[in-house]
Amino acid sequence: MKKEKTTIHDIARKLNITASTVSRALKDHPRISMETKKAVLKVAQKLNYQPNHIAAALRVGRSNIIGIIVPTADRSFFSSVVRGIEEIANQSRYHVMICQTYDNYEKEVATVEALLNARVDGIIASHGKETLNFDHFRKVKERGIPLILFDRSNDELEVSHVVIDDYLGGYKATEHLIQQGCRRIAHFTNARKISIYKERLRGYREALLNYGLPFSEELVVESNLQLDDGRNSMEQLLKLKVIPDAVFSASAYGAMGALQVLKEKKISVPEQVALVAFSNEPFTSFTDPALSTVDQHSMRMGNAAAQIFLEEVTSENEKFIPQKIVLKPELIVRASSLRKPNES
Amino acid sequence: MKKEKTTIHDIARKLNITASTVSRALKDHPRISMETKKAVLKVAQKLNYQPNHIAAALRVGRSNIIGIIVPTADRSFFSSVVRGIEEIANQSRYHVMICQTYDNYEKEVATVEALLNARVDGIIASHGKETLNFDHFRKVKERGIPLILFDRSNDELEVSHVVIDDYLGGYKATEHLIQQGCRRIAHFTNARKISIYKERLRGYREALLNYGLPFSEELVVESNLQLDDGRNSMEQLLKLKVIPDAVFSASAYGAMGALQVLKEKKISVPEQVALVAFSNEPFTSFTDPALSTVDQHSMRMGNAAAQIFLEEVTSENEKFIPQKIVLKPELIVRASSLRKPNES
Repeated sequence: MKKEKTTIHDIARKLNITASTVSRALKDHPRISMETKKAVLKVAQKLNYQPNHIAAALRVGRSNIIGIIVPTADRSFFSSVVRGIEEIANQSRYHVMICQTYDNYEKEVATVEALLNARVDGIIASHGKETLNFDHFRKVKERGIPLILFDRSNDELEVSHVVIDDYLGGYKATEHLIQQGCRRIAHFTNARKISIYKERLRGYREALLNYGLPFSEELVVESNLQLDDGRNSMEQLLKLKVIPDAVFSASAYGAMGALQVLKEKKISVPEQVALVAFSNEPFTSFTDPALSTVDQHSMRMGNAAAQIFLEEVTSENEKFIPQKIVLKPELIVRASSLRKPNES
Repeated sequence: MKKEKTTIHDIARKLNITASTVSRALKDHPRISMETKKAVLKVAQKLNYQPNHIAAALRVGRSNIIGIIVPTADRSFFSSVVRGIEEIANQSRYHVMICQTYDNYEKEVATVEALLNARVDGIIASHGKETLNFDHFRKVKERGIPLILFDRSNDELEVSHVVIDDYLGGYKATEHLIQQGCRRIAHFTNARKISIYKERLRGYREALLNYGLPFSEELVVESNLQLDDGRNSMEQLLKLKVIPDAVFSASAYGAMGALQVLKEKKISVPEQVALVAFSNEPFTSFTDPALSTVDQHSMRMGNAAAQIFLEEVTSENEKFIPQKIVLKPELIVRASSLRKPNES
């Protein structure tokens, strides 16, 4: 009864294509045309080919799911990006499934695995704060599944990504404070690992330089940029011999913490200390005074990421060139930094 | 070459089990034990059984994914419930994938379909504001996949659900305002369709009744309870001959809108108009004055929903009895309703 087992080479020979194409067709690789997949499948069944992959291949066709990986879905920035992705994806009948990593590296790795097992057609991700090793994302690439990164990205991966010009955001925020008459501007950052914060810090520094103001290490406070971090950072700054006359925080929650401390200590905002936040969380317009902030055009970022996905998933081109889209941030001036109302 | 095709009845006979059990085993039904599934699969392969389901069955085992359906993931309430679900689910090595419906009925139906296609092991859902037909959820039940509803639920479905006692929340909020000396308390509601709002309204009404205060239709304002709705509702109330001395809003954003209008019109909060919101969105503690609100114990709600899922997915019991868990809400008193600081 026993007979020689059919291999992918037998199928390849029969169809006059490469074994690698057969293998990818059986894995339901998105870069292989539906036509080729069907042909391979037909021959595979005829020759009684029985590898593990046949199961997947038997269900040829797409899952029509885009997996989204975000640190957390409850930050307005991330949820707006997701909204932007869905806006485009839904028009093309793709479903969007969101997974949260809570900035935990192990969870991020396991999530990529789970999405691959769920046979998603693509992954759009913003990696966690702890992520230094990107092998799990390389695996997605190797499977030929489109991977697009947004906001927090990594150049070594050679995948498409959509980011904002964080340098410009930092520059604009600082320049605005200088134009409002501030001369001793502090900065809340988290620049140790993540490039977006490094860029915002660079923008802050360049603006000071361009306007002839000194850069002072004591005015740059490192933290995780959460609410309590903002409180602690502000308290630290208030202990300086000469307190700052403005704070540019690289996060919205950090600025909120600073505002709370200033109000508790009856230090007037913006008269004594002006404040500019980063990322346009809804609450920034609900505070008193409302917080000036840098808007990241998150909806547009999501739109762009989804567009790239659609291009990559339908492309039959074997030669892949990653796209890089850089969006320009916008400064939204509100009461917390408006010392000269007429000049705003 | 042609021979009689193998049917599930052949497999059933061979194993001395029912055809329905064979069918469910081949569909990777969660209520069928792994042992039975493996036995069925072995016989199916031996007899060369070749239906469509074989593909799914070849990959016997769980996807280890719980699909979560929420109107939107960016409301703190929903994101906290998801956090509560993940807390429990991750311990049992389940992955959580979140789908948003944006309160759109068609999207909700399509999402259920996509989750079933992704072979999730269970669905935990809060249905949309527009959902009046529940056939898509019935399909989940029929497939034998655990379905747990939370917050917005439906008794007819006969599935397990976790809700909070919205009546009690409405009662407590209103009683607190009465105890603070308010006598003309308005209410923002969206009671036309969704039971949670009906219940909050009922609690409001009962509290007034119990304290001998009149219920007045002109003080109950219907809307979608978003920020702008809250603004409009407040403006409407300020046109009354006698304006209210308090507002209990069935949403956090509605209360925020009211607060904005009152501040713009220099009407002092809580002295002239006291405010109580519903749902403990983070921004409610960032406003000035901070908003009193009803906390829904959303983390605990998520924990409970995940616990029920784990019980249902591992249960071999064919007789299913839905569980109903009702959590007690908690009133968080902040400055927006505190007229008598000593009595808080």
